[in-house]
Amino acid sequence: MKATVLHAAEDVRIEDVPDARIEQPTDAVIRITRACICGSDLWPYKSLDPSEGARIMGHEAIGVVEEIGDDVARIKTGDLVVMPFAFSDGTCEFCHEGLQTECVHKGFFGNGKAGIGGAQAEALRIPLADGTLYPLSADSDEALLPSLLTLADVLGTGHHAAVVAKVEAGKSVAVVGDGAVGLCGVIAAKRLGAEQIIILGRHADRTDLARDLGATDVVAERGEEAVERTRELTGGFGAHSVLECVGLDQSTETAIAVARPGGAVGRVGVPQHTAMPGARASFYGNVTIAGGPAPVRAYIDELLPDIIDGKIEPGRVFDRTVGLDEVPQGYRAMNDRESLKVMVRP
Amino acid sequence: MKATVLHAAEDVRIEDVPDARIEQPTDAVIRITRACICGSDLWPYKSLDPSEGARIMGHEAIGVVEEIGDDVARIKTGDLVVMPFAFSDGTCEFCHEGLQTECVHKGFFGNGKAGIGGAQAEALRIPLADGTLYPLSADSDEALLPSLLTLADVLGTGHHAAVVAKVEAGKSVAVVGDGAVGLCGVIAAKRLGAEQIIILGRHADRTDLARDLGATDVVAERGEEAVERTRELTGGFGAHSVLECVGLDQSTETAIAVARPGGAVGRVGVPQHTAMPGARASFYGNVTIAGGPAPVRAYIDELLPDIIDGKIEPGRVFDRTVGLDEVPQGYRAMNDRESLKVMVRP
Repeated sequence: MKATVLHAAEDVRIEDVPDARIEQPTDAVIRITRACICGSDLWPYKSLDPSEGARIMGHEAIGVVEEIGDDVARIKTGDLVVMPFAFSDGTCEFCHEGLQTECVHKGFFGNGKAGIGGAQAEALRIPLADGTLYPLSADSDEALLPSLLTLADVLGTGHHAAVVAKVEAGKSVAVVGDGAVGLCGVIAAKRLGAEQIIILGRHADRTDLARDLGATDVVAERGEEAVERTRELTGGFGAHSVLECVGLDQSTETAIAVARPGGAVGRVGVPQHTAMPGARASFYGNVTIAGGPAPVRAYIDELLPDIIDGKIEPGRVFDRTVGLDEVPQGYRAMNDRESLKVMVRP
Repeated sequence: MKATVLHAAEDVRIEDVPDARIEQPTDAVIRITRACICGSDLWPYKSLDPSEGARIMGHEAIGVVEEIGDDVARIKTGDLVVMPFAFSDGTCEFCHEGLQTECVHKGFFGNGKAGIGGAQAEALRIPLADGTLYPLSADSDEALLPSLLTLADVLGTGHHAAVVAKVEAGKSVAVVGDGAVGLCGVIAAKRLGAEQIIILGRHADRTDLARDLGATDVVAERGEEAVERTRELTGGFGAHSVLECVGLDQSTETAIAVARPGGAVGRVGVPQHTAMPGARASFYGNVTIAGGPAPVRAYIDELLPDIIDGKIEPGRVFDRTVGLDEVPQGYRAMNDRESLKVMVRP
């Protein structure tokens, strides 16, 4: 079958790889209906050293179950399913707490770990299929597929940032980062009733979309100026909740600095640092910092009905669709900021 | 009047300074009944550069109100009061939220800022007396004074760590640091119903006291070994709540490492770093990090009855009492770890 293989920084190729197949009795194999490229895919795309080994990329997908292992009971062949970016057994204490990304048997798709494939491919083996996959109604409207696809990561991730940053009705929210996760953070904040939603970002096309999705204010400045502007917009104190959707030093420092004393920062940008800046600012401001890999599997129950009802349209973050053969161009377009988020239709 | 003046690292003297007096109509002057030396006083004691200017030390006290300004309405002359380490107006939105350490008019005693004195003295001017001071019943038993004194900082600070680390009945708690704040963290965790309370500390006399106060386990190892031992004690996953009561790089890294995935670290040790270690460990573990200067003023309502009823005895953290003239020896004893916490009886 064909799959997207990253060999080294900026060396991504579509190649023939061994067909996905059942290896464990708890596995399923899905045929990919839609996949996409994630902002976090750009980190290895920019920096992978060949010594780390090639990896099949992609961790977000909707697919149709083609085959199941002998121990799979809940998932059926033919099911249309959402594949969250992490697999989980669905039975451990963390899964029961709704924290599937901390499952004792967890793993992440597309990260090059032995035996784990990626979703930018024709098909994919899903470990722990019963715990991992989320079946959708088989007659899902094709027009809804882009929004349903965001349940695999980007919408649930923005929602996680909002939840751990304690977004509440009537409160102020600042979203740091105008990528697809930041935009989904705007959707999530609006959905949870935030009164003021400020997006910090420099790309007018993205912040325009953010306004469409619910942002009330845009801060295009950076660094100290962005902090000042955000404070001005929030009565001088900063935002109750801040969604950190980038993961860099500067964005994290800004996120902490624009939080109101006693407020909270929800971080979902994969941290590119080992020590978090702003240790004193967050301490003296009694600012809570929370977040991590989002348990998107847990959030589908809550988010799916709003997609079906058309109340939210997170699929609007996709601005380009490519076939599998064009995935390398998709990476290039996202890396060059020509594209916000690329959908893949194998 | 006499007061404790820090001129430079390890140069602390008892000196005659101008009498505390009313400067603003919202001020009160209190005569100090009991004060104490805080672990955080040791940071400037170890490092103050003379160019930073001398400062009157001390930010924890019980005293008797000697004089009030014209606008003071709630506090009366003759009141026995707790003086929290921060002053606050009691009327702003942060004070109303119970976050007096983020008051828009806040300030900290004993930090050398212009016009703000310290409590290791015969008397002290209290700005914003109505918002700041907490009156006690005038006939308070003298035997309770040490415990009542801890309401000014160390008990409320340990309690804050426990609250923001989400300590709950039946859960596991790890307390990093066996100083007076750590011991008060143990008291707070027990009071909030924690089932397992692990103290990480190397001083047998202190960890013995911790056991007396409610700790169920002691981890005397450090670094990676402490992490492994704590994980073993908590079923392999770490503690639901971790109280970081030191503020150093290693203690913070350990605190994050011993937190259960999805758990929380409450940090009240004044951070001695500008960037917080463990940025990736906390992210991948979905560990919440919260805390800061404790709003001890807000916690007195809840903690005071348990002291009066004898349910908790936080005054046990004091192992030495000195007169004002002996305060320099008190600093030396705490700095040399000969004393856990020194009470001052001017």
